[in-house]
Amino acid sequence: MHVAIPLYPRFTALDAVGPYTVLAFAPGCTVTFVAAEPGPVTDDRGSLALTATASYADLPAPDVVVVPGGIGTFDVLADEALLGWIRRAHEHTSWTTSVCSGSLLLGAAGLLGGLRATTHWAVLDLLRQYGAEPVSERSVVQGKVVTAAGVSAGIDMALTLLAQARDEETAQTVQLAIEYDPQPPFDAGSPRTAPPGLTDRALHLIV
Amino acid sequence: MHVAIPLYPRFTALDAVGPYTVLAFAPGCTVTFVAAEPGPVTDDRGSLALTATASYADLPAPDVVVVPGGIGTFDVLADEALLGWIRRAHEHTSWTTSVCSGSLLLGAAGLLGGLRATTHWAVLDLLRQYGAEPVSERSVVQGKVVTAAGVSAGIDMALTLLAQARDEETAQTVQLAIEYDPQPPFDAGSPRTAPPGLTDRALHLIV
Repeated sequence: MHVAIPLYPRFTALDAVGPYTVLAFAPGCTVTFVAAEPGPVTDDRGSLALTATASYADLPAPDVVVVPGGIGTFDVLADEALLGWIRRAHEHTSWTTSVCSGSLLLGAAGLLGGLRATTHWAVLDLLRQYGAEPVSERSVVQGKVVTAAGVSAGIDMALTLLAQARDEETAQTVQLAIEYDPQPPFDAGSPRTAPPGLTDRALHLIV
Repeated sequence: MHVAIPLYPRFTALDAVGPYTVLAFAPGCTVTFVAAEPGPVTDDRGSLALTATASYADLPAPDVVVVPGGIGTFDVLADEALLGWIRRAHEHTSWTTSVCSGSLLLGAAGLLGGLRATTHWAVLDLLRQYGAEPVSERSVVQGKVVTAAGVSAGIDMALTLLAQARDEETAQTVQLAIEYDPQPPFDAGSPRTAPPGLTDRALHLIV
């Protein structure tokens, strides 16, 4: 199973590295980071570059696509090099997936029409402009299209994906290998549970 | 608050990028990836390089150190360039922390004598050789030394750290910004909860 993760300037690192780690630990799974051109791509914090080892042209037909999000999403919503690659890859994929605002790129590529989909809570309503039905779920499976909520949700999404693409035991084995037994010290990870007033503060951190 | 994350060949990407994302989203926090020499450093899967932008010599006195783990830990347990940097940085830090087998490097640097500490479940007993008392906890705070369990535990550790280094509201705000509301599809992330026989399979994925 060959997984491609496209990188573009100002993506969010954990959006990409969460699913990457889950999938790259799975036996028989190869993950390649792709970009407009091979080389380092810098994230939304400006302090971490991940290396893309292939261009879009180098990897036109991966089995799985995982599109990360980040504030940079809004700069590439009309980037035909990226959107065209997503659209053409989707013709061949077994699974086309996104994390966080990456689902807006699936939408801009024309893949979400009539589907239920999710994204980061801060931009959930924007999915409507692509004909999708926004839903507040951790990950949403619609045929071979899988969208995840914000940033850290990519880990949960990738385990769900692995269970469907392979089998539950493989997903559980990876979960144990990466000791994914989450114990957040607070229950503030969703607007539903966070203390009042925190969403405005959180928005300031994102943009 | 300046955070340094040292990279060495065959580190585990999520060990580094989990805490990185938590801390880099915090206001007033700068994170720098350091290595023996600046440049790309390739992870344990062989398919992802993160760029170190500074050498150890460039950043001798960060406020916080986060040492990631990975199978490559075992190649640098006697690497005096890395261990000496950790040891000298620790004289100045407010917090010296690790994720996964990164705690073995804190131990090899001589920082864990007499302390309770944790690491990935697969190597927990190895902490004893550094005079530490191994404990199965998600993260362990001992004065300014904080160790985390395997791979994904770095996210929980970094939120705990942020709450102590700054305040709980800052940690909760970051948690909401990265939508860290974990909903793993299985309860297999710990040897205590994983189905029987899975630990042997998981070990094969790690080494």
